[in-house]
Amino acid sequence: MRILVSNDDGIDSAGIHALVNSLKEIAEVTVVAPHTEQSAVGHSITMQTPLRVFEYHKDGKFFGYAVGGTPADCVKMGIRNLMTSPPDLVVSGINHGSNTAINIIYSGTVSAAREAAIMDVPAIAISITSHAVKDFSFPAKVAQMLVKEVHEKGLPLGTMLNVNVPNIPEEKISGILVTKQGKSKWDDIYEKRVDPYGRNYYWLTGNLLEVDHELDIDQAAIKNNYVSVSPIHFDLTDYKTFDSMKEWNIEKLFHAKTT
Amino acid sequence: MRILVSNDDGIDSAGIHALVNSLKEIAEVTVVAPHTEQSAVGHSITMQTPLRVFEYHKDGKFFGYAVGGTPADCVKMGIRNLMTSPPDLVVSGINHGSNTAINIIYSGTVSAAREAAIMDVPAIAISITSHAVKDFSFPAKVAQMLVKEVHEKGLPLGTMLNVNVPNIPEEKISGILVTKQGKSKWDDIYEKRVDPYGRNYYWLTGNLLEVDHELDIDQAAIKNNYVSVSPIHFDLTDYKTFDSMKEWNIEKLFHAKTT
Repeated sequence: MRILVSNDDGIDSAGIHALVNSLKEIAEVTVVAPHTEQSAVGHSITMQTPLRVFEYHKDGKFFGYAVGGTPADCVKMGIRNLMTSPPDLVVSGINHGSNTAINIIYSGTVSAAREAAIMDVPAIAISITSHAVKDFSFPAKVAQMLVKEVHEKGLPLGTMLNVNVPNIPEEKISGILVTKQGKSKWDDIYEKRVDPYGRNYYWLTGNLLEVDHELDIDQAAIKNNYVSVSPIHFDLTDYKTFDSMKEWNIEKLFHAKTT
Repeated sequence: MRILVSNDDGIDSAGIHALVNSLKEIAEVTVVAPHTEQSAVGHSITMQTPLRVFEYHKDGKFFGYAVGGTPADCVKMGIRNLMTSPPDLVVSGINHGSNTAINIIYSGTVSAAREAAIMDVPAIAISITSHAVKDFSFPAKVAQMLVKEVHEKGLPLGTMLNVNVPNIPEEKISGILVTKQGKSKWDDIYEKRVDPYGRNYYWLTGNLLEVDHELDIDQAAIKNNYVSVSPIHFDLTDYKTFDSMKEWNIEKLFHAKTT
């Protein structure tokens, strides 16, 4: 099995090293990850400036390719330019911080896996629910387990798995659940500050308003100590509204207005 | 009616000025747009650095707020910080270049409208299918028409409209169609160049592989000279795979591996 690993925390983050060590036990691993942290970049791709690729060494040995771009750039660059043929699987993570509910939209970790799904390569994004993680061994084990499962069972073209692991000791984990994206959202606050030159600037802060309580929802699953596994795709059509909009008769509206 | 207007081409682009002029005929308009071009930034939000807000003047008069961030930042900042209360509608555009099929994922124009939908404000993203547009009067008219329609009919919470207008004379327009997101994707190519210091760098280029032919698909609609209107939401759950994954029994797998 050949696996491309990426992330959004950058190639020198602890999470990606734990993931690579775990996956090397079962596969040939190529690392292509951002040169610097790219959290909350969403599905950004770099088109206004060119990309640079650097060879990144760790403990005197080649570890992988660092790209001066976003997580989605790394996956495109890895599959199109750095690997001789597409990998069997792309795994993104292990992200420092959960990617559930609305955060899926903003997440660079998820966008790396989604870019793979767009390129018809099965993919997994994996995150742990804390920014202060001491031990990545359990999420690394979960990643290995799910990689084997996806490699055996396959995923529909265009679908990826978004995995979130509670940051608690393994013996306290309740189990694994297949889940849906939650509806919890951020109550955004812009904290206004004044720079030494008297000019205003704003930091985005806020609180997650938790509205998800059913165990088959990602946000509720992790709160109840379950590993959450959500199948995610990139068809954004709202089919229900597509059907109901037929009653709008916008076609007629257009002719009425322009003739 | 109060409308917040944003875009991804930047506050000084021709498209946003045409849109603002058209919408001012029917509403009170507040402009909050990126200070510089932000194409293909996807649903990126700025968290690693603070945001700056500038008052932007055009022809000696206040035109709107320029934000040193992404389209999604602009909508958050506008609704949370610059407007006294949320607007009735957010309109993003008029984008220079189409946003159909897979481009919806990468688009900053669409992400501005999607951020509004996340904040429970009805929203429209509008694009014209060319980067070299001389006359924005027809897409500006379409925007005004659809704003009135959305204001009257409403949209479900979390749903926005993604509108694409062919860049042809109005008399050649076939009509307006309600459409779904297409499946056409990019065949990415990284063009390798060498800088004056002998180092490689890469430009992302490529061709859109068109696979959409039915008229109720965005990409096919615009090819056939129709204005395309797609209802888009941000629930990324693949419900079909959610159901089929029940057969995986991953819960059992976890217990088998860890006990």
